[in-house]
Amino acid sequence: MTPGGVLARFGAMSKAAFQRLPGFRDFVPEDLALRSHIFDAWRRVSRRYGFREYDGPPLEPLELYVEKSGEEIVGQLYAFTDRGGREVALRPEMTPSLARILGERSRGLAKPIRWFSIPQLFRYERQQKGRLREHFQWNVDIVGEDDVAADAEVLAVAIDGLRALGLTAADVRARVSDRRLLSAVLGALGVPAEGLPATYAVVDKLEREPRERSLERLQNEAGLDAGRAREVLALFETPGLEGVRERFGERDEVGAELARLDTYQGHLEAMGLGDFMTFDLTIVRGLAYYTGIVFELFDRSGEFRAICGGGRYDRLLELVGGEPLPAVGFGMGDVVLGELLRARDLLPDAAPSVDRFIVPIGPEQRALALRIGHAERERGRSVLYALREQGVGKQFKAAASAGAREVVVLGPEEVARGVAVVRDMASGEEREVSLEELT
Amino acid sequence: MTPGGVLARFGAMSKAAFQRLPGFRDFVPEDLALRSHIFDAWRRVSRRYGFREYDGPPLEPLELYVEKSGEEIVGQLYAFTDRGGREVALRPEMTPSLARILGERSRGLAKPIRWFSIPQLFRYERQQKGRLREHFQWNVDIVGEDDVAADAEVLAVAIDGLRALGLTAADVRARVSDRRLLSAVLGALGVPAEGLPATYAVVDKLEREPRERSLERLQNEAGLDAGRAREVLALFETPGLEGVRERFGERDEVGAELARLDTYQGHLEAMGLGDFMTFDLTIVRGLAYYTGIVFELFDRSGEFRAICGGGRYDRLLELVGGEPLPAVGFGMGDVVLGELLRARDLLPDAAPSVDRFIVPIGPEQRALALRIGHAERERGRSVLYALREQGVGKQFKAAASAGAREVVVLGPEEVARGVAVVRDMASGEEREVSLEELT
Repeated sequence: MTPGGVLARFGAMSKAAFQRLPGFRDFVPEDLALRSHIFDAWRRVSRRYGFREYDGPPLEPLELYVEKSGEEIVGQLYAFTDRGGREVALRPEMTPSLARILGERSRGLAKPIRWFSIPQLFRYERQQKGRLREHFQWNVDIVGEDDVAADAEVLAVAIDGLRALGLTAADVRARVSDRRLLSAVLGALGVPAEGLPATYAVVDKLEREPRERSLERLQNEAGLDAGRAREVLALFETPGLEGVRERFGERDEVGAELARLDTYQGHLEAMGLGDFMTFDLTIVRGLAYYTGIVFELFDRSGEFRAICGGGRYDRLLELVGGEPLPAVGFGMGDVVLGELLRARDLLPDAAPSVDRFIVPIGPEQRALALRIGHAERERGRSVLYALREQGVGKQFKAAASAGAREVVVLGPEEVARGVAVVRDMASGEEREVSLEELT
Repeated sequence: MTPGGVLARFGAMSKAAFQRLPGFRDFVPEDLALRSHIFDAWRRVSRRYGFREYDGPPLEPLELYVEKSGEEIVGQLYAFTDRGGREVALRPEMTPSLARILGERSRGLAKPIRWFSIPQLFRYERQQKGRLREHFQWNVDIVGEDDVAADAEVLAVAIDGLRALGLTAADVRARVSDRRLLSAVLGALGVPAEGLPATYAVVDKLEREPRERSLERLQNEAGLDAGRAREVLALFETPGLEGVRERFGERDEVGAELARLDTYQGHLEAMGLGDFMTFDLTIVRGLAYYTGIVFELFDRSGEFRAICGGGRYDRLLELVGGEPLPAVGFGMGDVVLGELLRARDLLPDAAPSVDRFIVPIGPEQRALALRIGHAERERGRSVLYALREQGVGKQFKAAASAGAREVVVLGPEEVARGVAVVRDMASGEEREVSLEELT
């Protein structure tokens, strides 16, 4: 291919071909500044809690998702056949990759394993306002510990991730439930074991479906009679634990679950995070693999979708061919969180800025400008200068537009005396600095 | 789908389905530590030079690559049809996305635009030892400046990116050429303009093809007679600029190009980076869109493939429908660089480590341990503790395996006195610290 050929063909293209795909984002520096702000907070908090970062490929064998997640997710996958005839998919969630990696590696690792990751995930969702087809998701998991302290630890990480971005207990709250408690209570209400999954599905939709529809589904799908169905619904009218404790707390199977949740709450209170947490039996989480405490984080105003969801999934890893290992973790996306930070006026300053802009008065000072620039960068400063010969006025304008905090002016007379003039751009104050110090 | 159903199906899967795809990498924490080490150096150096980070989607319309890169790259693309009938591809390089984004946005931006990115890129290469199908690539570009100072600046960034990782002029060198100089010299040797692209293609392969084959191709593909073909080959036997300067320097069109390269070299010398650079006319770079100075970075031992390649591409952006903007930039991958760092013993310490591990002697001190842990994390320390009740010996073992620098022991007698014992794990030294200070 000749250069001419390429360019001619490129030029002949319709511009429509050069739109980005719907549901995908470009991150120009202002957007990337927010993304980095969020990622930095996530990484900082992860490391404070002793989590180590990992990653997997964005492309995985399709089977990893088909078998685990069922038809619903498969219908939303970016899946295709690669040139080698393999069925592959862009990862829609991170847990299957984590399970795959640990299935191979966990035997050699000290337990509990504390890992985090910030993968980009992909789903082909129907196009709606604000619905994207990719997002980044902070994944934090503790693998190999079934004590409730691990559950509390993981929620604390999620909460501190939000606190590190400036959010408080007045902005966000965690709604916590436990599938084991819920199943014990539903059992006490006479829901048979085989009706539990269908009942969870109804509970998961309580806030979005009319009461009549939920009643119907409990009868048709979970097989409850009308009286039981009404009793089940009544249970969720006060979604805290007080009602449950009063009515069912004396039963052994319920009492044991309540005691565990009390310990959980105690741990979060010891960490000073009790204000962020409420128990809420209506939280069941969609994913089928949760086995214990589950939680979701929401903004208190109820304006946004869930910021974060997670819980315990004790049976997943052994079934990928690894050790039988209990696990607990969460995923927190960057999109809803970004919207919430914007709404609460917690966006970072994304304006450009550099420490110093060097201004040679004439071509004779240009080599010196380069030398100073490099020496300053070696000292860790961010430094710019004009990349062509320009008048001093133009250079100062460029310095201002780059957000330079100081300008270093190299004039012939000063350079002859072995100094440069450093001007503070905010105050306008100027001082002389020896060239020795700058080079 | 019932949980039982999911788990049963997951359990029934053959383990073969849970391999990662060939040519893709998992990054367990030890691998990710190296990746972060490299990314951190790239980001640090980018920012010192006043570059701002951007990103685009990993998935783009197929046309973005077909039209620009031609059949060769298209044959290596991960391309497929999405659920909306769009032809899409995983990005094989970043420049087309940059061109697309700037085509839409550049008019509103101060020039020159200094942007960098660290995208993951994908190619379906035939499987060979060490050849991957994905890699991360540091992309650095200056857009909107055609002065040679921009060319020198970009090479300086690439060199400093390597220096920040511990590599020196004894380890790596930049081989620099200029397509304008080469075409002027080839013109002086009688190569017609229409024979230039084919001649570049032969020059690009000089090191990998036998001389006879190159001679043949110059005749068959570039249309040179045997004498001219031999003269062209002779030119590259001493690939520096001295021979060119001697033989062709008097010609205006060659002299102007040499003067520009002298300025380029002067800029790098002023920055103290002259030792890293050699002129080498055999460097032409494969990509058709380069229009001026081009360069590649290699390890001096010649053990590895190119670490980095880049150059000036002045005509690309206007043809994507944007402003006519000159541009210069490079891409540096993480794979060859990682191999080189390993060979030069420059890998980061990837062992786990935390600042403090808190050891409650009994269950009575556990809430206090959580409280101290959270307070310490608020102060920015990384902190761990056992997530279940354990004997002191087990807790100390866990502290050692987590790489804890200090262990904070909470015994009943000390706590009653309002202190904890802090043990330095390296020296074994112990001191008492007041609980007030820790909480």
